[in-house]
Amino acid sequence: MKQSEFDLTQDGRRKTGPTIREIHITPIAVVDPPLLNAAGLHAPYALRTIVELVTDDGISGISEIPGNSGIDAALAESRDLLIGKDVFQLNEIRRVLVNRFGTETAAQRGEAPWDQRKLVHIFSAIEVACLDIIGKVTGRPVVDLLGGKLRDRVPFSAYLFYKYEGAGGKLAFGIDPEAQGWAAARQASALNPAEIVAQAKAMCAEFGFQSIKLKGGVFDPRQEVDAMFALRDAFGPDVPLRIDPNALWTVETAIRYGRELEPILEYLEDPVRGQANMAQVRNALKTPLATNMCTTSFEDIPASIALSSEDIILSDHHFWGGLRASITLAGICETFGRGLSMHSNSHLGISLAAMVHLGAALPTLPYALDTHYPWQSDEVITAGRFHFEDGAVAVPQEPGLGVELDRKALAQLHQNYLDCGLTKRDDEVEMQKVQPGWGFRAVRW
Amino acid sequence: MKQSEFDLTQDGRRKTGPTIREIHITPIAVVDPPLLNAAGLHAPYALRTIVELVTDDGISGISEIPGNSGIDAALAESRDLLIGKDVFQLNEIRRVLVNRFGTETAAQRGEAPWDQRKLVHIFSAIEVACLDIIGKVTGRPVVDLLGGKLRDRVPFSAYLFYKYEGAGGKLAFGIDPEAQGWAAARQASALNPAEIVAQAKAMCAEFGFQSIKLKGGVFDPRQEVDAMFALRDAFGPDVPLRIDPNALWTVETAIRYGRELEPILEYLEDPVRGQANMAQVRNALKTPLATNMCTTSFEDIPASIALSSEDIILSDHHFWGGLRASITLAGICETFGRGLSMHSNSHLGISLAAMVHLGAALPTLPYALDTHYPWQSDEVITAGRFHFEDGAVAVPQEPGLGVELDRKALAQLHQNYLDCGLTKRDDEVEMQKVQPGWGFRAVRW
Repeated sequence: MKQSEFDLTQDGRRKTGPTIREIHITPIAVVDPPLLNAAGLHAPYALRTIVELVTDDGISGISEIPGNSGIDAALAESRDLLIGKDVFQLNEIRRVLVNRFGTETAAQRGEAPWDQRKLVHIFSAIEVACLDIIGKVTGRPVVDLLGGKLRDRVPFSAYLFYKYEGAGGKLAFGIDPEAQGWAAARQASALNPAEIVAQAKAMCAEFGFQSIKLKGGVFDPRQEVDAMFALRDAFGPDVPLRIDPNALWTVETAIRYGRELEPILEYLEDPVRGQANMAQVRNALKTPLATNMCTTSFEDIPASIALSSEDIILSDHHFWGGLRASITLAGICETFGRGLSMHSNSHLGISLAAMVHLGAALPTLPYALDTHYPWQSDEVITAGRFHFEDGAVAVPQEPGLGVELDRKALAQLHQNYLDCGLTKRDDEVEMQKVQPGWGFRAVRW
Repeated sequence: MKQSEFDLTQDGRRKTGPTIREIHITPIAVVDPPLLNAAGLHAPYALRTIVELVTDDGISGISEIPGNSGIDAALAESRDLLIGKDVFQLNEIRRVLVNRFGTETAAQRGEAPWDQRKLVHIFSAIEVACLDIIGKVTGRPVVDLLGGKLRDRVPFSAYLFYKYEGAGGKLAFGIDPEAQGWAAARQASALNPAEIVAQAKAMCAEFGFQSIKLKGGVFDPRQEVDAMFALRDAFGPDVPLRIDPNALWTVETAIRYGRELEPILEYLEDPVRGQANMAQVRNALKTPLATNMCTTSFEDIPASIALSSEDIILSDHHFWGGLRASITLAGICETFGRGLSMHSNSHLGISLAAMVHLGAALPTLPYALDTHYPWQSDEVITAGRFHFEDGAVAVPQEPGLGVELDRKALAQLHQNYLDCGLTKRDDEVEMQKVQPGWGFRAVRW
């Protein structure tokens, strides 16, 4: 490619940009089944926000972040900071956003310190969309902007949930009696070990996953541990297993059940709340501990290292401030001998594409990544739903993220958002609709 | 569209390559004055190696690393690993080099663990040249490949040396009696505080430096500390001062003189050898400690953090494995509340350009960077010597590094290399030519 195609000045500099001319922020609601977790129950719709940047020369870059009307408002508020910025100036863009929104302290982040942080969500949205544009104007997939791919396919894990019967969406818990295969299993209830095994078999049959995670923190630990042994019996010793009690166990419970699970677990995720408790549990167990709730930001890293509270950080580019920050996190993990894998929230293909580009660039990928993707049926990209082969997703080779907005689907999913009336995730309220008086507890067993 | 079908996308953008077709490795020798340091005496020539990659479509990318015939041989040996590689695949290029050369352990690195490490030098050479090419094909300066610039000018510090009279080069210690200004001061002796002050005044007058570092570890600490107070008297309290005893002091000496220097030092660099000793000194002093000798690689970081042995890491992209690794190091420093600045060896404009691009992208730059550049008079780039204004260098705006090889100068400097007979830096041997029987000591005072 000749440099003249980049509209260079006489002395070889690019005249302008590409600079951000438009920022489109579209909240959407995607059908989500009634999945159970420590915080309560998933609503019939999961919220996401789709961000599209358009440059002065009409190039579009897109991204997807967790949906929350407060974050959307902050994104809209940051428009004047971002319009006119060169998409390559990611350091400068981050600086102006830090100046506007600050970085929240752990104390300000409250009971769910991993979630709903303005700066990291907003910068993640802008950075990924800018990288999509940079990829398009340089003719390279996003992974090549992160140093290039070290693997052609990125492996994911099955992500099992306890759940009520129902498929989610407009019919609330209503089901489609015609559904077959995974579509049928997805709407089936899973409230005991046998139903969890059935869910795992259907999900693995459909997606080919070769490791399995159970979201726990829902039932008495005895039942959840029994479910893990039932999975082991069903899948044998070659399928790595993980359980995530969502930080709901006491240290004593975590050590007691952790020891019982030691022979069959690949890792134990967030058994307890807080780094000090994690460190206590880690001292007592041989099983590696993973976290996306106790060490959730760069500010948390020094204490994690000092306490040796975890073995594996479950990163999330939406929560750690973008793809390049995630590469820095990978460097920190490598430097301090920690493992790195990925956390997930309910998401569509734009987030999945970003996760896959990042996953392909990481120096090592010892654990299959989390994804909620099988639980979603909607999609917002023109190519439709991503295909999994043997549980892995092929790294897109097209310039940028390699996915394009399906504008008709976007309009429909935005209409869902307007219709459903949800403006932020609140699993406790949803749970109370089913179990009146139910209340979130930070530590339950 | 399948990637195999076309080299270009539908809108004419490139999908494959640029790939490395040629690798040129040219050792050069540049005139260097008889500067003194803890290891002995600079030879009449400083050695550098210039690396040029040429892509399949004839685009050239360049880099410069410390000169050493062993490193040159290893670079040549890595040719077969690199020819045909896409310049964007930096992660893959690093992986094949790690597989070939391994990462040296601290024990393997011996008495000068910061220096002469194959993997980091070779990868630095290849990565910077690849980034130069990527910048050229995308029409962007290298800083934009590191997230974009946060400052237009990168500040450097005056770097004072005790030295014998002489300008270096073919005349060994011979001088040019016609020299004026800094060229005259550069060849003057500096063997006591008054001569150090004269050197500082001439260097600051020429380059506009606004902070000053003295390379110590040469004379009894009493004289070197006196030189620092003489600098303070001459320049006043607004010019930050640093001294680098080159890890030659005992803990007791460092604490004694460190306390005396506390009122006037910006930071104290490597007063002692090893992280444990640094931690002892740091506990006893209020002055921040900086290092490029005690914490010199990612493997050293965990102990540095655990011991709190330093406040400031003096990075060096030649020694830490490239510009992107330096960005990761910056993230580690930011995460753990450490400062970051830059170390220097004798170098020319290609290294300086790379340092400036990196310096412009760093999130914070609290300390002016080190550079030996004023001590060199040769240059290997077509634009000639870099200009310093108020001690700072403007960030190149042209695509890539923004500097081009002067092939005539390269040939001349390579001839110097062949003529001078040096194949690696050995300051002890040079010192013995002047002081027979002189021997390096790891701790002297």
